[in-house]
Amino acid sequence: MAKQPAPTVRTAITPRREDDFPEWYQQVIRAAELAEPSDVRGCMVIRPWGYAIWENMQRQLDAMFKATGHKNAYFPLFIPLSYFEKEAAHVEGFAKECAVVTHSRLEVNAEGKMVPASPLAEPLVVRPTSETIIGASYAKWVQSYRDLPILVNQWANVVRWEMRPRVFLRTTEFLWQEGHTVHETETEARDETKRMLDVYEEFVRDHLAIPVFSGEKSESERFPGAVQTLCIEAMVQDRKAIQAGTSHFLGQNFSRASGIQFQTRDGKQEFGWTTSWGMSTRLVGTLIMAHADDDGLVLPPRIAQTHVVIIPISPKEETRAPVWEAADKLATELRRQTCFNLPIEVEVDRRDLGGGIKNWEWIKKGVPVRVEIGPRDLESGQVSVSRRDQPVKSKQLVAAADLAGRVPELLESIQASLLQRAQQFRDANTRVINTKEEFYDFFTPQELGKAEIHGGFALAHWSGSREIEEQVKSDLKVTIRCIPFAPANGMPNDSGICIFSGAPSPQRVVWGKSY
Amino acid sequence: MAKQPAPTVRTAITPRREDDFPEWYQQVIRAAELAEPSDVRGCMVIRPWGYAIWENMQRQLDAMFKATGHKNAYFPLFIPLSYFEKEAAHVEGFAKECAVVTHSRLEVNAEGKMVPASPLAEPLVVRPTSETIIGASYAKWVQSYRDLPILVNQWANVVRWEMRPRVFLRTTEFLWQEGHTVHETETEARDETKRMLDVYEEFVRDHLAIPVFSGEKSESERFPGAVQTLCIEAMVQDRKAIQAGTSHFLGQNFSRASGIQFQTRDGKQEFGWTTSWGMSTRLVGTLIMAHADDDGLVLPPRIAQTHVVIIPISPKEETRAPVWEAADKLATELRRQTCFNLPIEVEVDRRDLGGGIKNWEWIKKGVPVRVEIGPRDLESGQVSVSRRDQPVKSKQLVAAADLAGRVPELLESIQASLLQRAQQFRDANTRVINTKEEFYDFFTPQELGKAEIHGGFALAHWSGSREIEEQVKSDLKVTIRCIPFAPANGMPNDSGICIFSGAPSPQRVVWGKSY
Repeated sequence: MAKQPAPTVRTAITPRREDDFPEWYQQVIRAAELAEPSDVRGCMVIRPWGYAIWENMQRQLDAMFKATGHKNAYFPLFIPLSYFEKEAAHVEGFAKECAVVTHSRLEVNAEGKMVPASPLAEPLVVRPTSETIIGASYAKWVQSYRDLPILVNQWANVVRWEMRPRVFLRTTEFLWQEGHTVHETETEARDETKRMLDVYEEFVRDHLAIPVFSGEKSESERFPGAVQTLCIEAMVQDRKAIQAGTSHFLGQNFSRASGIQFQTRDGKQEFGWTTSWGMSTRLVGTLIMAHADDDGLVLPPRIAQTHVVIIPISPKEETRAPVWEAADKLATELRRQTCFNLPIEVEVDRRDLGGGIKNWEWIKKGVPVRVEIGPRDLESGQVSVSRRDQPVKSKQLVAAADLAGRVPELLESIQASLLQRAQQFRDANTRVINTKEEFYDFFTPQELGKAEIHGGFALAHWSGSREIEEQVKSDLKVTIRCIPFAPANGMPNDSGICIFSGAPSPQRVVWGKSY
Repeated sequence: MAKQPAPTVRTAITPRREDDFPEWYQQVIRAAELAEPSDVRGCMVIRPWGYAIWENMQRQLDAMFKATGHKNAYFPLFIPLSYFEKEAAHVEGFAKECAVVTHSRLEVNAEGKMVPASPLAEPLVVRPTSETIIGASYAKWVQSYRDLPILVNQWANVVRWEMRPRVFLRTTEFLWQEGHTVHETETEARDETKRMLDVYEEFVRDHLAIPVFSGEKSESERFPGAVQTLCIEAMVQDRKAIQAGTSHFLGQNFSRASGIQFQTRDGKQEFGWTTSWGMSTRLVGTLIMAHADDDGLVLPPRIAQTHVVIIPISPKEETRAPVWEAADKLATELRRQTCFNLPIEVEVDRRDLGGGIKNWEWIKKGVPVRVEIGPRDLESGQVSVSRRDQPVKSKQLVAAADLAGRVPELLESIQASLLQRAQQFRDANTRVINTKEEFYDFFTPQELGKAEIHGGFALAHWSGSREIEEQVKSDLKVTIRCIPFAPANGMPNDSGICIFSGAPSPQRVVWGKSY
């Protein structure tokens, strides 16, 4: 909600962010053709324009995983119920939201109706996460300290039955990666947990242009079965938090449950120390909520599937050929350039539609740079260039001959400006709070425009008490997003007094409402 | 079973191909750590070495799909039973092998046992293929001829309950891609069906070094609901066929079932013409069965995750440093080279194990080129180079300074020799057959070594009668693999007389036993 247009300006998306943020989010997704709901409750269809974003996320994250020594593998979709039960906290955490396969066939019954048949001896759970099924393999792979570390990642779909689905952010089926590692020592496993969180932080900040708070979850927000859960938390434009990635130190809990044991250097038997970490299609939703505006999606260049769209505008038949030719020439020159070590992806929009219609379509789809070229531009040797991070009407004339040379720096500048804007927005809406009263005021929704909005993130002292967390959650729907590693936001982070109880507090923690 | 070692030669894989082909296949997979069975019936774990092959297949096929104008998307894992029933032949074809989700929660019952809870109003089928669920989206996307063609592909997991699973070749869950397209005219859809089969043929031949027969399936082997099924058929080393990829022309059957309708250029409403086409992790099994030998996996360089392994051999501590240094230098030089337009992937095996052990491990893993370097090689300025497509003991001394320059052509030569070998094997085991008696003889297993083996592929005239197909299948377990487009194998393919019935036959068809 950084810069709001005056109410008289027509925007491409209705409603605007300030009027109805949740509905605006749906409309951005619809207008950009990113995804759509399906008739399967809580399951979405990811359309090509949305899936291309996920493909880029995958490719870039995968390269980061491989650079840190991880390899990919693939484990079964189905988990036998008996596996799932091996870790008590784990099954308790996921039992309420499982898709359960109970039959292996369909048949037509006496009434002519098709019904499930051949009941399974043991029900199968569609994986909500894969610690237990992967653990069963690791128990076979690991015999000796020489087999360690195991550094494996899986790209997969997972299912968690959602009662209140929201496209990308919370869907019954979603796509993700899950890293699962086994280490010889606790220290190595803890280092891995942090290393992968750092990879996530870097990816989200440098690729998606979203600043995050990174830290540890409080006990009540931990992954079921984990000893420690680390996370990165982003703020989106309605000032709510989105947990954008988590990395879990699992201690020996899961290796004990799955029997992952190894012979140590001094000949003893020990359980392996394991970690797991994941990021999902939720990131696409985070990206939309962080950067899109009242005219639609805004893609950071580094994750965009198309960096530049060239729109030849030639209403008259007789000028069409030279304009198209010039557009193709520009595209060819641009495709020879690279940015962020990647080739620049260019699309030439040759469809037989009006220039305005085409232009608005690419605005709504969030392409970083739009280039319009018409008959008069040919004469002047110039093209008109628009940046998606700047107001829709603002254009810059650039000599056609200079365009290819200037686009890489233009893309870098857009990437940097989106990060800066998101950072400024977050900082402006993150407050150091020292009293319970101010805290409650901060999180009590205020009318802002036509929508209700709360303050944002609060940095406040907390004694460590779980009861306080529960009280605050029940009063305000506010939770501890993380116990930050570093002093958050350049703000004081030394010890103090819990604003709720007056008990000593070792540090300020980050509070917020969340998706 | 091309070149068999004399019985006295020890091989790395026991049993050898000629002794027990199915068991040999399992042992190659185990020795190369490609995959393993899981405790979930029929579901496999794809281990990193196996998954890396699939990743390369994905990357290369995906580039070919994009080059032919296709984009990726993602559709739900679950298909409502009512969708699935929309196309009668389709549901009949898949009903016998479906995983069915019937509950959305687990709970502990009165006896303290965890059981499925919250039954679903409508059961969900875990997708065995996605025509119906994708059709539901396409019905929304397509309004006018202007929206066509729709050219979309999905990379996904699918589930078909398997009673007799075999790793990679036939598993309950497998990974695949499925293309689904909609076209304005029948001709365009038929062209697309053939275009994608050609992509498959090119990929399998030029990337996997496996020649195929391509053609049409007979009616009895068609995809449930298709008007026409095209396929490519490979021969593996026990002379059986593997269907390596299929492309279906679906006519208007599925668009009618899903309501994919559009306004034509002259303002009428018409159903779209659809296609679907797929390739799966079955290809990994095909690759193994086509190229592996009695010492383990043999990877065609173009699909190999590691092209060259460098094995520094330095039993004495004092020579270790210079040997390792020389190995690293070679690796750096090699990584600067490309082959098949891809960077050359090199691994240096620094593990503290004997040279022989390391060497055999890489042989079993199928790496195309092995380079050994020891203290004496340093003095002579040479390294010892072994090609995986040649006998294990054969080595070639190459000047270290020349290695990097020579490896690209070496890899190309291995790729070519594997294709040639597979082609020769197939041709030698494909016979033109003109009488029923010879046909039955050809397919009656003969003792060959310790195993029983049949002739291979037969090219024989057939009248087109379904009854004959059924008789031959019941007598010999032999089916028509395809009705080839081109005269198969350079053999005569003109019209003639059905060898079973004496009725006229328009052309010879390819018969074989199959996986």
